[in-house]
Amino acid sequence: MEQRLSLVTLGVGDLAKARLFYESLGWRASSASCEQVCFFQTGSMAIALYPMDALLNDAGKTGNLPVPGGITLGINVSLREEVDQELAKVLAHGATLLQAAMDTPWGGRTAYFADPDGHPWEITWAPMFPLGPAGELLLP
Amino acid sequence: MEQRLSLVTLGVGDLAKARLFYESLGWRASSASCEQVCFFQTGSMAIALYPMDALLNDAGKTGNLPVPGGITLGINVSLREEVDQELAKVLAHGATLLQAAMDTPWGGRTAYFADPDGHPWEITWAPMFPLGPAGELLLP
Repeated sequence: MEQRLSLVTLGVGDLAKARLFYESLGWRASSASCEQVCFFQTGSMAIALYPMDALLNDAGKTGNLPVPGGITLGINVSLREEVDQELAKVLAHGATLLQAAMDTPWGGRTAYFADPDGHPWEITWAPMFPLGPAGELLLP
Repeated sequence: MEQRLSLVTLGVGDLAKARLFYESLGWRASSASCEQVCFFQTGSMAIALYPMDALLNDAGKTGNLPVPGGITLGINVSLREEVDQELAKVLAHGATLLQAAMDTPWGGRTAYFADPDGHPWEITWAPMFPLGPAGELLLP
């Protein structure tokens, strides 16, 4: 798995209220934001606000996140098949499977694993967000 | 508060074991790492592995983190006085104080607040890590 971080997803109770808080600090939401999710570009990666129930559902259909903090760390890959390949690699190194690789309703592919302390990571192929030359996630 | 992310800190039970996991994925630790903390450069920011008890102690002397996930999001500032100034701003916008601004044993200054969903943020002045021209945290 490359030494990068593409996305930090914060589970929120009220998306509009959470977005307003960050906007009140002077942050500007990406035009990729919609009623289901809000994105902020932060350097080479992005922060997403996402309803907590949707996050828990995405990250593990069969149970809760091992660490119940409602934050997931995401690494985006360039090719669809890399989701499965990278997941196999991290599991071989002792990570715990949270959610097997699956196609998403928004046209991508994603899988979740936990590191040895239970911190949840997401491996994602999101074709609408092509990566930059150094692997940066660059939002519109 | 600027639209940046400097550091994601992951609380860990066994620092050596956690470091080994990320190194087994091919990641290379910064020379700024030591027996108390391990840093990995990730694009414009960094990921830190840090013992969970130390993290909980730093982030709130008087109680636990509101969201018990053991992940904190950090934004580094260039000047010592900005820690207090930025903390005052976010509190004025409805953030919750977790830890008032305080000087640290390693020669910096730090404060913690929670966003409306309880996600813990750290505002840090770390003079040994000067920021890049776009606010990047660039480790040695």
